[in-house]
Amino acid sequence: MLVVGKKLFENPSGTREEILAATYRALVEHGYADLTITRIGDELEKSQSLIYHHYDGKDDLVLACLEFMLAEFESTMDDSEIEDPRARLEAAVDWMFACEFDDEHQQFFATTLELRARANYDPAYRDHFTRSDRAFDRQLTTIVREGIEQSVFQECDPEAVASTLTTLQTGALFRRVSADGTEWLADVREEIDVYLEQQVYATSE
Amino acid sequence: MLVVGKKLFENPSGTREEILAATYRALVEHGYADLTITRIGDELEKSQSLIYHHYDGKDDLVLACLEFMLAEFESTMDDSEIEDPRARLEAAVDWMFACEFDDEHQQFFATTLELRARANYDPAYRDHFTRSDRAFDRQLTTIVREGIEQSVFQECDPEAVASTLTTLQTGALFRRVSADGTEWLADVREEIDVYLEQQVYATSE
Repeated sequence: MLVVGKKLFENPSGTREEILAATYRALVEHGYADLTITRIGDELEKSQSLIYHHYDGKDDLVLACLEFMLAEFESTMDDSEIEDPRARLEAAVDWMFACEFDDEHQQFFATTLELRARANYDPAYRDHFTRSDRAFDRQLTTIVREGIEQSVFQECDPEAVASTLTTLQTGALFRRVSADGTEWLADVREEIDVYLEQQVYATSE
Repeated sequence: MLVVGKKLFENPSGTREEILAATYRALVEHGYADLTITRIGDELEKSQSLIYHHYDGKDDLVLACLEFMLAEFESTMDDSEIEDPRARLEAAVDWMFACEFDDEHQQFFATTLELRARANYDPAYRDHFTRSDRAFDRQLTTIVREGIEQSVFQECDPEAVASTLTTLQTGALFRRVSADGTEWLADVREEIDVYLEQQVYATSE
């Protein structure tokens, strides 16, 4: 199962990962604008001076934290135990559009929104989000392509299906953290199922 | 034709609208974080003191500017000269997913992203974006409902179609301003057409 957040950092291997786990917790608690090295240090059970030994400052830490999460996402997707393409795509969509959204998710994605806004001005964030969007597209493209090859999916454009799902997810996450009400979410989820049914999943005929 | 931005503020009627036009120009030029009343004053051809006479500060101005744009959007949609529901929906989708995106659009939507990020902390922005998302949903819902009533659209869920398009637009705009490359955009646009063809537009049979 794909995870975000605290669970991902539960068993840090080594000091660097402990520092990234502390960065993650501080980001969720304070957001990006109010994040300081001292606040990251407060979340770390070791000496704050270790942070400076490994990282060059706040943005270096935040970017390393995002990179770590992206790498974990990719390796979890690559190691998926689900073989059947349809079951894999359904699991991915379930995860991408999960209706359950606790405070940690709310804060984490609100922070992501802050960082996306920085990407207009800061090439390092822009580079990260370019790669992360493409990683999502690529993972979904692979699933759709495998489904077509195994004839469990219809002929369709795997990249186009992937981009549509990734873009919808981005929209859904940012709408959730910046506006009240989630009555639209179940509707969107239903339309995704209709779209995949018509455009991707092979008919039994 | 729907417009955003400068064109919307071309013929300000009265001092308030002139101030909002100056706010818009300053927002596009400096973004939200670096916006100051002085910078808004620099864009205004009248005395800066007028700003304080009408508005209570930076956020009051930005929110009034967003409200003005939202009201213009709604009245333009309400006054649309296009009668045919399919032509109306197509025009709305063309506008929402326009591939042309000049520097002004880039800066304006990057600023919107900054303001959406604020909405997690500031109820006034949250309230605005809640109403603005609903306004988009409502306008699209009306078009789809009229199409069903006139039997030019199939039976479908107008709210669900509307929410899906609005959420995709949000995702597309924010992906564009925070990551490089737009190769995915034409793909998404194509999938929207396929989805509307299958789910909304009535077949000729």
